[in-house]
Amino acid sequence: MKKILILGAGLSSNSLISFLEKEAAAHQWQITVGDRDPELARSKVTPPTRSTDIDLRDDHQMDREVGDADLVISMLPARLHPVVARFCLKNKKSLITASYESPEMKQMEEEVKAAGLLFLNEMGLDPGIDHMSAMQVIERIKGEGHRLTAFESFTGGLVAPESDDNPWHYKFTWNPTNVVLAGWPGPAVFLQCGRLKYIPYNRIFRRTEYMDIDGFGRFEGYANRDSLKYIERYNLHGIDTIYRGTLRRPGFSQAWNIFVQLGATDNSYVMLNEEEMTHCEFINSFLYYHPKDSVEVKLYRAFHIDQDSPLIELLESLDLFSDEKIGLRKGTPAQFLEAILMKKWSLKPDDKDLVVMWHKFNYIDHHSREEKILTSSMGITGENQVQTAMAKTVGLPLGIAAKLRLTGRLDLTGLYIPTIKEIYDPVLSELRENGIIFREKDKS
Amino acid sequence: MKKILILGAGLSSNSLISFLEKEAAAHQWQITVGDRDPELARSKVTPPTRSTDIDLRDDHQMDREVGDADLVISMLPARLHPVVARFCLKNKKSLITASYESPEMKQMEEEVKAAGLLFLNEMGLDPGIDHMSAMQVIERIKGEGHRLTAFESFTGGLVAPESDDNPWHYKFTWNPTNVVLAGWPGPAVFLQCGRLKYIPYNRIFRRTEYMDIDGFGRFEGYANRDSLKYIERYNLHGIDTIYRGTLRRPGFSQAWNIFVQLGATDNSYVMLNEEEMTHCEFINSFLYYHPKDSVEVKLYRAFHIDQDSPLIELLESLDLFSDEKIGLRKGTPAQFLEAILMKKWSLKPDDKDLVVMWHKFNYIDHHSREEKILTSSMGITGENQVQTAMAKTVGLPLGIAAKLRLTGRLDLTGLYIPTIKEIYDPVLSELRENGIIFREKDKS
Repeated sequence: MKKILILGAGLSSNSLISFLEKEAAAHQWQITVGDRDPELARSKVTPPTRSTDIDLRDDHQMDREVGDADLVISMLPARLHPVVARFCLKNKKSLITASYESPEMKQMEEEVKAAGLLFLNEMGLDPGIDHMSAMQVIERIKGEGHRLTAFESFTGGLVAPESDDNPWHYKFTWNPTNVVLAGWPGPAVFLQCGRLKYIPYNRIFRRTEYMDIDGFGRFEGYANRDSLKYIERYNLHGIDTIYRGTLRRPGFSQAWNIFVQLGATDNSYVMLNEEEMTHCEFINSFLYYHPKDSVEVKLYRAFHIDQDSPLIELLESLDLFSDEKIGLRKGTPAQFLEAILMKKWSLKPDDKDLVVMWHKFNYIDHHSREEKILTSSMGITGENQVQTAMAKTVGLPLGIAAKLRLTGRLDLTGLYIPTIKEIYDPVLSELRENGIIFREKDKS
Repeated sequence: MKKILILGAGLSSNSLISFLEKEAAAHQWQITVGDRDPELARSKVTPPTRSTDIDLRDDHQMDREVGDADLVISMLPARLHPVVARFCLKNKKSLITASYESPEMKQMEEEVKAAGLLFLNEMGLDPGIDHMSAMQVIERIKGEGHRLTAFESFTGGLVAPESDDNPWHYKFTWNPTNVVLAGWPGPAVFLQCGRLKYIPYNRIFRRTEYMDIDGFGRFEGYANRDSLKYIERYNLHGIDTIYRGTLRRPGFSQAWNIFVQLGATDNSYVMLNEEEMTHCEFINSFLYYHPKDSVEVKLYRAFHIDQDSPLIELLESLDLFSDEKIGLRKGTPAQFLEAILMKKWSLKPDDKDLVVMWHKFNYIDHHSREEKILTSSMGITGENQVQTAMAKTVGLPLGIAAKLRLTGRLDLTGLYIPTIKEIYDPVLSELRENGIIFREKDKS
């Protein structure tokens, strides 16, 4: 009987636990879910899955739990992964996470190899499914002898159309702080037609592009921070264009840019208000003084927003100009803005979220010498506030990797991210069986 | 015979040395100018003034020079002042600088008092003359029983009209790096009519105001970083409005804002160019890719600049779109921009600079209960590239303070900045004799 230890029982572990519990009976696995909060862990499992409290500072307990497992999956916050990794090395156990491979993790590479273990990071959605779905196409194109000239890739976590009840067409489905701080403080850097391009933070949400995803409609994409690191990661040396970004529904970015221009997304200083601020007072902090003009008139005037601009509906939907207290005493502008947005952009119990991913590959055809364009896209809808598409797309790749490993079909030793065929082929194949399906389209 | 030790023989010491040399004969003073570069020190002095090389790491030499002096004036970079201050404490000598009172300096306060010394900081132009000229009016208004409601203050170092040969009406007369990084990364914070206001960096150069200074014409002012600290500094608790800013000629800020919006003033990252960039390539790094459009057309389109906009003359005057190499291999955007600007904005040998300062005081008249407005302003023109107005306005207050101290008219013990009457009254009076004259105007 093989044993799996899952560390962390938060929201993102739901789909992983369900998937592995479903597989456990057939494979005779024993699953243990450990969390700092034993009640939380217990609430997430169905016997025979075990739950336990776990304290990373308790060496004895960690050695016992890790030592007893055949495989460890860490769903803890990324900064804690190196601690878990140390226990895995000590007890000679393999480890899977959904987080970026950190420098601390990289430093353990030789020890991992020497111990004959597999440490597999970036095994969620983004990073994770993005790597696998892109690399499968990239290596196929290259394998057929074509020259890849451009790669663009966008991912988005949004609200599904059936639960979409606000004009931003957006709700928080993952860490809201990361959404508010997207791109801050900049710049975004990428490569276009052989030229290095930088977009300062205050322009990121004005330099968007549109893309249509079959069955899911139209989206707009804004640039992520650093697209260049994917040249190394995907072995794309010599490529002319590489651009990664985030997907929102059209109109989001232009309205979000108002917050950027206002300075309301700044996270570098704590505001000096002595009283608890209202929504309106918060917005007014960033606008010029006028003895009589309303805050909305000042905002619209400062940003040249006409009285019939579609932006007005988006801004007013957030009750930005109301005398309601924000509900936060002290904070940075970004923290106050997040508190205001949480009131309108939180998923309701039955709300469904949506995860979309879109890749574009340009290549010079080996035979015809002509440029060809291929797109590959995926969209998946969640079930409710708990079984979200986000949790599913993060949890499934982890669960599938665990299954492959425990059934002897992922026989690798060392430190990996899923950019190699031995990982992405079987994982993508099983993701497809679970409804995470990429559809390709020849655009040339 | 009293002895004065001046540390640092850079550009900013010129006027200080001249002033003190003129006074030395009458007062029987011996002046020594010490610099890391003994040749530089020698070139700046006229016998009987001594010059010497100085090494802050040489305790023996420092103790000898400081120990031999009656008063030390440090013109070294601000970060070195605490080192000099330590030698002054050890050898029980008073110290004057033109730099902001640092936390390290503040920590020495008790020792300075116990030793019966005077450490006088912020004794230049800004900080320095700004404190003195403002406080003299503020304390007069308060002393007459009126209630001060608003204080605004602006200072600028620019090129004099007779040497003005570019459409920005600006040249570097002080540290160019500080000019390029003005306000970056923000925000500017101030108080207006009792409300805290924040201006994010990307809006600072769009929220300017105009002011006219008699005899010097019209200027525009943009907000400095932190106006609030002057509430404490000038004892203005309860004031409704406090705003400090920087003066430029009208038109400067709107054009400078293009660099801000482009991201060309960012100092947070080193650009990744492999070849040395041309002016045009630098600007193009921040603009969208287009296979045919020129960089200027892309810039004007991105920022909605009409073909007859006055901005075009300013931007083109910098040869921004030329294929000339910048002359810098590696750097941040701000460093590349500075290198481009240095080619056009450096003072020529006979160029004259201009220093202007403008204060506005609003108060409720004690008798009439009416609001009154008083402005106070000063402008002074330099002689050439070396004897600049900037060096004069920094050096004279230092020299005058030294003279007052050595002649027994500045009998203070402790750590000070010149916000008290015992300092500002005699210094402003002697500045006036030297042509630095504030003129008041009743605007109510």
